[in-house]
Amino acid sequence: MEMSSYITGFVDGEGSFLVSFSRREKMRTGIEVRPAFTVSQHKRNKDILLTIQRYFGCGTIRFNSCDETWKYEVRSLKEILGRIIPHFEQYPLQTSKRLDFARFKQICQMMNQDYHRLAESLPKIIEIAYGMNNLGARRQDKRSLLSIVSKMKV
Amino acid sequence: MEMSSYITGFVDGEGSFLVSFSRREKMRTGIEVRPAFTVSQHKRNKDILLTIQRYFGCGTIRFNSCDETWKYEVRSLKEILGRIIPHFEQYPLQTSKRLDFARFKQICQMMNQDYHRLAESLPKIIEIAYGMNNLGARRQDKRSLLSIVSKMKV
Repeated sequence: MEMSSYITGFVDGEGSFLVSFSRREKMRTGIEVRPAFTVSQHKRNKDILLTIQRYFGCGTIRFNSCDETWKYEVRSLKEILGRIIPHFEQYPLQTSKRLDFARFKQICQMMNQDYHRLAESLPKIIEIAYGMNNLGARRQDKRSLLSIVSKMKV
Repeated sequence: MEMSSYITGFVDGEGSFLVSFSRREKMRTGIEVRPAFTVSQHKRNKDILLTIQRYFGCGTIRFNSCDETWKYEVRSLKEILGRIIPHFEQYPLQTSKRLDFARFKQICQMMNQDYHRLAESLPKIIEIAYGMNNLGARRQDKRSLLSIVSKMKV
């Protein structure tokens, strides 16, 4: 078996590319942006998450006792840019998740240039994130996010 | 990308190996045994099911309007034995699903020798099926199934 292709197949079914936003009074934009790559599994399948963690050489695994699942998660922008994104460029997703990945990649690259720290460029990141299928980005209403940022421009 | 490994990865997350039992008065054992290999997806991901269907060269794709999902399904014993099982022998599943697959394979091989048509050997198939994680086998209560079969021995 070719493990890289296996992992793309598994993630195409079970993985998520998320961008979430949190209100942070002290930040210049008023909002913190956090990207995350995650894969969740029932507790009987923890081993495959360890395999994925070993494969990528980064990320953490945590147990959620509410729904008895394990979650593999990579939140470091550096690791996402250095390890996660290059994998999915070389072994591309085949479902509609590849569109989420494209948006996720675009946001991470913009963050790498500090676009998320400026009230002028953050709205563009918010727009892209709200185009993603995954609901993880929608913990906050888009309009209220944009309104927070616009006030910070003043 | 190596497509065979990708497909094993995708199925490890999204696929199911099922064995279901139905009451059939006219059959010698009183029970019909039906194996199925299935992969379900949200309607936006129908394309990946077409890719899988092309890869295996068998199976049907149907829409379930209740939950807006598409389901790829292989129910023919001949195709399961000839195409599905050999793939997963060569490109093995990595999660606990490989145990379900092992039991599924054992049942299909027993069916290929007509063990499911005899009241003497059918209970063994029922026992194996009820050891599978997947709930697909449990549309009927195990005890009532075994009781039907035991009456047919007389």
